[in-house]
Amino acid sequence: MKTDLAIVLVSGGMDSCVCAAIADSSYQLAFLHVNYGQRTEARELLAFNQLADHYQVKKRLSVSLEYLKVIGGSALTDSNIAVPEADFLSMQASKFQSPSIPVTYVPFRNAHLLSIATSWAEVIGARKIFIGAVEEDSSGYPDCREIFYEAFNRVIEVGTKPETRIDIVTPLIHMKKSEIVKRGIQLSAPLNLTWSCYQNNEKACGRCESCALRLKGFREAGINDPIPYE
Amino acid sequence: MKTDLAIVLVSGGMDSCVCAAIADSSYQLAFLHVNYGQRTEARELLAFNQLADHYQVKKRLSVSLEYLKVIGGSALTDSNIAVPEADFLSMQASKFQSPSIPVTYVPFRNAHLLSIATSWAEVIGARKIFIGAVEEDSSGYPDCREIFYEAFNRVIEVGTKPETRIDIVTPLIHMKKSEIVKRGIQLSAPLNLTWSCYQNNEKACGRCESCALRLKGFREAGINDPIPYE
Repeated sequence: MKTDLAIVLVSGGMDSCVCAAIADSSYQLAFLHVNYGQRTEARELLAFNQLADHYQVKKRLSVSLEYLKVIGGSALTDSNIAVPEADFLSMQASKFQSPSIPVTYVPFRNAHLLSIATSWAEVIGARKIFIGAVEEDSSGYPDCREIFYEAFNRVIEVGTKPETRIDIVTPLIHMKKSEIVKRGIQLSAPLNLTWSCYQNNEKACGRCESCALRLKGFREAGINDPIPYE
Repeated sequence: MKTDLAIVLVSGGMDSCVCAAIADSSYQLAFLHVNYGQRTEARELLAFNQLADHYQVKKRLSVSLEYLKVIGGSALTDSNIAVPEADFLSMQASKFQSPSIPVTYVPFRNAHLLSIATSWAEVIGARKIFIGAVEEDSSGYPDCREIFYEAFNRVIEVGTKPETRIDIVTPLIHMKKSEIVKRGIQLSAPLNLTWSCYQNNEKACGRCESCALRLKGFREAGINDPIPYE
């Protein structure tokens, strides 16, 4: 009998699906989805709801952060900045911003996601916040590193009511993409329902950095990716 | 010549006005306002724009966080929880939530404000984020304490691009309300344009905890509050 409640941040992508599968083994689930004006938000929301249906999650919250699009500064939310193809990633990154951070970085995005999750957790009494962030085998976003989540846990500790106990849990943080695929298969996670592409809403492009990382993970795991590609 | 840019979080209340006056002495200003479904948001937004006009601020961003109302859990955003009058504050607090935290606490609110400010700062190149939080002589919200801002500065350090340098500045954190009034008068801050009441939009109620703290500050400073009360 699972009694404690955990919020899972579910973008609709493969990582968040496997993260939900891991959380499901120990907790009652509440699913949180955040749109922030990204190009593929309708497709991601569909994946979110299908994943929530799969896990029979009743507590669902979908939030729109239109202001992240207004603030801009990212290829994911600003139509003036092209979504780079994976091969050109490092070149594009050095041209538009810091050498190591891709143009798809949405400034400080995960702090917004965690703040929403924390407020919701404090109200519904959830003890854990699961997020499928990946540090090593990923896009190099600063807010996907373990050090960021450690720092945010401290903010939660001092910024909520004294009796509130909420921890961020990052079960995938040190996993490779291929390990995530394998773990998902082990846990019967419905990877066929997920969506990772940054560019398209119907068939995944197979070329953006998110598709490239996903496909590399499936290839290295020796498993066929079940979603349709162009 | 002020060259560095600072974002000031301007609710429209007295504290944020004095905070803006302090920032104005050293920085070019950008003003950020956040509605989160609170009862008095229209009146606060008016105060924000009048303060921005006063300081001739061109970079203005007003953001609505409707989801904080959806999440609820606070008398400020949930019409099922009454805004307590100051005299009844401790009783109400112990009835509805933790003994020390008022029912007007919006769960983890300031983390949302700082996340928005940080994303915006990273895109427009602001180096400082000013927030008029007050720790001692205040309502006892956990996210108004210096320890919270120290922890958040660490999150900014590790959660933004390597070349990004943004610090949160809390010039009022250890001031009493009466000192804030006096500092505002010294700096010719337009306190007549500000709005603090949690309850009303036309004439301040004079009885909610925010009015009570404000009036106490003016009284102890020996200065008349220039705004209209019921």
